[in-house]
Parts: sequence; structure tokens; C-alpha cells
Amino acid sequence: MKKTLGIIGGMGPAATCDLMEKVIALTRAACDQEHIHIITDCNTAIPDRTAAILHGGPDPVPELRKSAVRLEAAGAELLCMPCNTAHHFYDQVTAAVGIPVLHMPGETARVLRQAGIRTAGVLATDGTVQSGVYEKALSREGIKAVYPDEADQAQIMRLIYRGVKARAVPLADIPVPDILTRLRDRGAEVFLLACTELPIAFAELKLSEGCLDPTRVLAFAVVRACGGETTADSPW
Amino acid sequence: MKKTLGIIGGMGPAATCDLMEKVIALTRAACDQEHIHIITDCNTAIPDRTAAILHGGPDPVPELRKSAVRLEAAGAELLCMPCNTAHHFYDQVTAAVGIPVLHMPGETARVLRQAGIRTAGVLATDGTVQSGVYEKALSREGIKAVYPDEADQAQIMRLIYRGVKARAVPLADIPVPDILTRLRDRGAEVFLLACTELPIAFAELKLSEGCLDPTRVLAFAVVRACGGETTADSPW
Repeated sequence: MKKTLGIIGGMGPAATCDLMEKVIALTRAACDQEHIHIITDCNTAIPDRTAAILHGGPDPVPELRKSAVRLEAAGAELLCMPCNTAHHFYDQVTAAVGIPVLHMPGETARVLRQAGIRTAGVLATDGTVQSGVYEKALSREGIKAVYPDEADQAQIMRLIYRGVKARAVPLADIPVPDILTRLRDRGAEVFLLACTELPIAFAELKLSEGCLDPTRVLAFAVVRACGGETTADSPW
Repeated sequence: MKKTLGIIGGMGPAATCDLMEKVIALTRAACDQEHIHIITDCNTAIPDRTAAILHGGPDPVPELRKSAVRLEAAGAELLCMPCNTAHHFYDQVTAAVGIPVLHMPGETARVLRQAGIRTAGVLATDGTVQSGVYEKALSREGIKAVYPDEADQAQIMRLIYRGVKARAVPLADIPVPDILTRLRDRGAEVFLLACTELPIAFAELKLSEGCLDPTRVLAFAVVRACGGETTADSPW
């Protein structure tokens, strides 16, 4: 009997679907009934995480905890949060429930260490960058994080907020290849798409080569943690 | 304040994500918080609907009702089922809850009538075809349904079960264009993709032209029923 997965979602809604699709694609199943039972709370009442960390915006913790409790009450046996920035609040979320919550940056750092990576370029929201969520997870595995400079980081934020979340700016208008070249010059052996909107943007821009997608890492970990068999040998 | 949507899903899991994506794409929103709050129960314990209707398979009603009750308890104010065949059990599901359940075939038939369609080709599972779910909804709007012949219907079932659900047969191996030509010869002015796996297959096969997608019709109806503004004027 496989475990029931609960997804604390809505951060953003497209990233929530992206995780669900990756879980489904990575589950070995010949019919509906062999897939994992997933309960998703696409809770769009959760306030913006970066705004809370950096600009005194409303605290997302109460709604994150409400979703966690709602999913546990509905029967989830294992939780995950497809939002890297939300992991800044990880301890406060786990404290609200009696079931395990997978840690996306931690899973990602482990996958990098197993691949022998020493320096990773981190593409993420300002909130994730400045809270050090990935830096902590990576340094625990002996991996160095390099970040875009200020101007490039502003472009990454534009890609996430105006490109994917609002669909107000064409993704191709943002000079992503140049940003990657500059990170590679500074030692990045791999690019971490460390905001869940980025794998969506990079797939559309056909720039996924040389990147590690923490959403796929999380999906892979989720399938195994729920007792499913994966259709791939690794999350790369 | 928009209403919270509950999705009775898992029939199959990919179709559930497809509906969520269509709801998200059809919602006018500039940030996560302007999207609709969606709670999804991707309940893969729901037995196969066609097998129950035609071959004495396990009854899906108890699990369908469990999902409906679970979603209402979690805070959903409106439900929908992204599975056309499951609408054979619609009355038994609605009886379990105190909140409305949108009716996908009914919404689809209304959209066809508004477009002046008189004859629609129905592509669906054996369960949907033989239970008359679409025939009833269409005839209520004065629209005639035409179906593939026995051999072509077997190919449609193969496309759904072996192609999309199991990913065991390449979609292009199934002679879909020939099936559409034969339906057009028999008077079909439009093709209804009346199994939620079919819009996925048709998009991949680039055959969506001239088709109406009931998943998109349902998504459109859901956004409006939840009090959201749609990004398109019609579900076509």
C-alpha cells in the first residue's frame, strides 16, 4: 500500500501542477489505480514568501500551517512544499503536523553531492537568495553556491514574477543565456533552478541542459518515500 | 472573495493536472494570490469507471463519495469531476454533499448549442458511450451524437488506456485522422474529446483543430462559477 502524499501548493499554482506532473511521470504505473494518491491544497491565500522575508510583507506561516493541517486531516501521510522560498519557514510548518515534510533544498543538495558537484549556480527569488535557504543546504554537503550579480538577479526576478506568474512579459525577452554564461565564468558547474517557476520557464526557453531541477528532485524523492517505483534511475 | 474549488480527481491523474492547468491559464491573475484556491483529491483508489459500467467491476461510487466528502470537509465550496465517464454516477455523488457539483457533459452540450452545432462526433470510453452520458446531455440541447464504429471505438479505447494512461503505445501508432474522417463523413460538425485523456493525446498529436475539449469547457465554467474573471471570451 503506497502512502498518500499531501502537497502544500499555490506557490505558484503553475509550479504546483508542474510537481504533480513530475510525480505522475516518475511513477511506474500501468493504470490510474497504480498511481500515488495525492491531495493538493493549491492555497492561493498564502502570502508572497519573498515579500515577507525582505519587505515586511504579511507572514505566510499561518496559511502554510493551515494547509499542512488541512492535508493531514484529509489523510495525507507525507507532505511536501513545491516552493523553494517557503523552506525558509520549514521548521514552523513541520511543527504544526505529526507527519514528515520532505525538504526540497536538502534533497537537491544531496543529489548534487552524489554527482560530485563542487560549485553550483543558484537561480532563485531574492527571498531564497537572501534567506540563505540553499546556501545552508549546499554547505552542509560541502558545495559552494554562486549567485547572479545584482542586475542579473533583477532579471531572474522579472522572469519569475512578470514572465511566469503574471504571464505579462515574454520569457524570451529576458537575457537568460547571458546570465548563465556569466555564472559559468565564475565557476558554476551546474545551474540550480531553485525557484519552482524556473523549470517551467527554462523548459519553454529550451535551456534545461546543464541544469538541475529541484522540482524533479522533489518528485523523485516523493515517489520513493511514498513506496512507489520510479520510471527513471535518477532525478537528473 | 472567490469560492474555493474542489476537484474529485485521479481519473486519471494526468487529466486532473490538465484541468488544473486549464483553470490556472483561464484565470485572469497578476500574482499567485489572485488565483482560485483549489483543493484536489487525486484519488487513485477510485476503481475504473468503464469496467464498473460494462464488466461488473468494483463500484466507484463509495470512493467518489469519499473524495467529495473529504473535499467539502477541507473547505471546498464547489466541486467538479474531470472524468466524463464518472458522470454516469453524478446523482449518487451529489447526494453525498451539500455543495454544488458542476456537470461537465451538461456544460459541454450548452456550449455546442450556443455555437449552433446540430451533430457532434463523440470520442469517449466504452463506458461513456454505452451509458449514454453524452447522448442524454446532447439530446437535451437538441444535438445529435454520432459515434465511431466498433473497430474505430476499439482504437479510441487503445489510445486512452494504452496510449495515455499506461504510456505503453506511441500515440501516433493509432490511426486517429482516419477515424475523424469517417465521423465527418457521417455528419459530425465537431469532435467532442469526451474522455479527459483525449485532449492530452490530441494536443500531442496536433489534432485539436475542429475539436471541442470538455476539460476546457469545465475549466471555463469553474473559473466563472468561483467568481473569477476568464482570460478568454469562450471555451472554444
